[in-house]
Amino acid sequence: MLDVCLPGTGGMLPLPNRWLTCCWIEHQGAAILIDCGEGTQIALKKAGLKPARIELLLITHFHADHVSGLPGILLTLANSARTQPLTIAGPVGLKRIVSALTVIAPRLPFPLEIIELQFSRTVKSDQPTAGSPIATSVPCTPKPLYLQNVGGHDAGYRASSREKTSPVKITALPLRHGVNCLGYRIELSRKPVFNPDKAKSLDVPVKFYKHLHSGESVTLDNGRIILPEQVLDGIRRPISVCYFTDTKPFPQMIDFAKDVDLLISEGMYYDERMREKIDEKNHMLFSDSAKLASKCGAKRLWLTHYSPALERPHDGTKAVQKIFPQTTISNDGEMLTIAE
Amino acid sequence: MLDVCLPGTGGMLPLPNRWLTCCWIEHQGAAILIDCGEGTQIALKKAGLKPARIELLLITHFHADHVSGLPGILLTLANSARTQPLTIAGPVGLKRIVSALTVIAPRLPFPLEIIELQFSRTVKSDQPTAGSPIATSVPCTPKPLYLQNVGGHDAGYRASSREKTSPVKITALPLRHGVNCLGYRIELSRKPVFNPDKAKSLDVPVKFYKHLHSGESVTLDNGRIILPEQVLDGIRRPISVCYFTDTKPFPQMIDFAKDVDLLISEGMYYDERMREKIDEKNHMLFSDSAKLASKCGAKRLWLTHYSPALERPHDGTKAVQKIFPQTTISNDGEMLTIAE
Repeated sequence: MLDVCLPGTGGMLPLPNRWLTCCWIEHQGAAILIDCGEGTQIALKKAGLKPARIELLLITHFHADHVSGLPGILLTLANSARTQPLTIAGPVGLKRIVSALTVIAPRLPFPLEIIELQFSRTVKSDQPTAGSPIATSVPCTPKPLYLQNVGGHDAGYRASSREKTSPVKITALPLRHGVNCLGYRIELSRKPVFNPDKAKSLDVPVKFYKHLHSGESVTLDNGRIILPEQVLDGIRRPISVCYFTDTKPFPQMIDFAKDVDLLISEGMYYDERMREKIDEKNHMLFSDSAKLASKCGAKRLWLTHYSPALERPHDGTKAVQKIFPQTTISNDGEMLTIAE
Repeated sequence: MLDVCLPGTGGMLPLPNRWLTCCWIEHQGAAILIDCGEGTQIALKKAGLKPARIELLLITHFHADHVSGLPGILLTLANSARTQPLTIAGPVGLKRIVSALTVIAPRLPFPLEIIELQFSRTVKSDQPTAGSPIATSVPCTPKPLYLQNVGGHDAGYRASSREKTSPVKITALPLRHGVNCLGYRIELSRKPVFNPDKAKSLDVPVKFYKHLHSGESVTLDNGRIILPEQVLDGIRRPISVCYFTDTKPFPQMIDFAKDVDLLISEGMYYDERMREKIDEKNHMLFSDSAKLASKCGAKRLWLTHYSPALERPHDGTKAVQKIFPQTTISNDGEMLTIAE
């Protein structure tokens, strides 16, 4: 189960009635926060989200509306008496940016682990590589991050790029915004479905169900060995959320966001007459994200990152839902629990 | 005439219903902004203040709640197509802080003039120096800043530390907050009162009144010379505002804030049981600022910089007004025009 929230939905400038775009994704009490513009710590409070739960902060890029609230978030965590490390991941250059912005938050009571997501630029082919969700005309995705349950006294999850110890996997895609900018896909893997009818037909006692569901083989009292695949109904696809701000549209986004349960994607304006301006600024219109949602087979689309000049984004609802009916013109505080 | 506004009144952390403390002081369309914590650009919008009018940004100190909104303010000014320089003044270290925070606002269309207010630490005496508003047990005040009207195409005021070309003078006092921190006094000098009865008794034609009021001597048609002092009723004291956050109280603040029209001063809590905590943190209670207002002969006191834990600062009204009746427990957006 993933809880997803958009505490803010604005782009460029925070407004009195619209916080800057950021995204909260929580699993079992451990949260990922994507981006933190000016005021994000207030937006979290308004949405009823607990900053202390943040284990991983993902930054898309270093424009002020996506990162200027970093000192505020860090100091809020400091005030909550946090001592466990916080991981911040983002594009190359992140260490320099964090180092500069924390000049006004110099003595944090917890360590920062900064991960710059490096992308190989050696592959020249325009064809997708086997096993890679993205075509190789863009840089290759780096090794995924995993939100890691560290357990014990230091409870909670921690981001780790080293090994898979968590069901929450994060991959990144370089976007096209004129500066280093990353899109993110967050996936929660799920256990296969346990089939009690199969277990009963094999005379497996109930006490063994949990072990089999976790992928362990068991030996029954009569010496018979039961394998997990004898009682499980195959692999379920992960729950997935994809997040794209800021970028102009390009084909590889479709593969990267393939079949996501929720696509969160920018829409600066709904008015097609803004096309020229939006192309020039490397952004997307509502229709761009709707076409993308349709092509990648997303179950739902949340639009966000509205221009401050767009006072009534909901006026674009009808037109965008013609392209992709499951589109939501998100409001600040938009929430969804994805269980299935 | 000075227009004064407190767009925010919070300390430490911005809250959904309380912006961080900052102060707006405007004279003839040119504004001074004191401090800019996270969200100040939104607080200005909510208070109906126009960031484009900011000519001088004064920083008290480099704690995040007083300066983390700097990139946002600068980018807001950039979006308003500003090209004229912006002066930022504050404690020593300001250049380093501005340089670090503008890593996410790297290409501003206007130049920044950074003034670090240096204080001499050579004077040892505990007695006030002649001409200095502060006792010399604290560092001497540096040369005042003047908000300078540059005129012409580049209209508006500009801060200048070089010469007195404006009626708006800014002086600073080092406070006691455990880090470099400055209090500010803003004074608007006023022309002496013109006495038309005196002018009439000297047979001065009305066409000369304006020149005489501006301090110029005039020669009448009959060759007689009239001096300004023959028709003026002496010097009027300036309009003055004094601003103190963050600090513990100390005696030199009284001289520095002598006879101000408006004292704006911090009050983290009203509850005297917070005394120990507040002393330790180098802050003030409501009663500290009220005693200060009383001792310095202020006409009015505005309290601000409430602790996030203080949900209902107005509950402290009665007690603090016993000490200094002209105390206002400021709300976000508190406004006053000081004309006399």
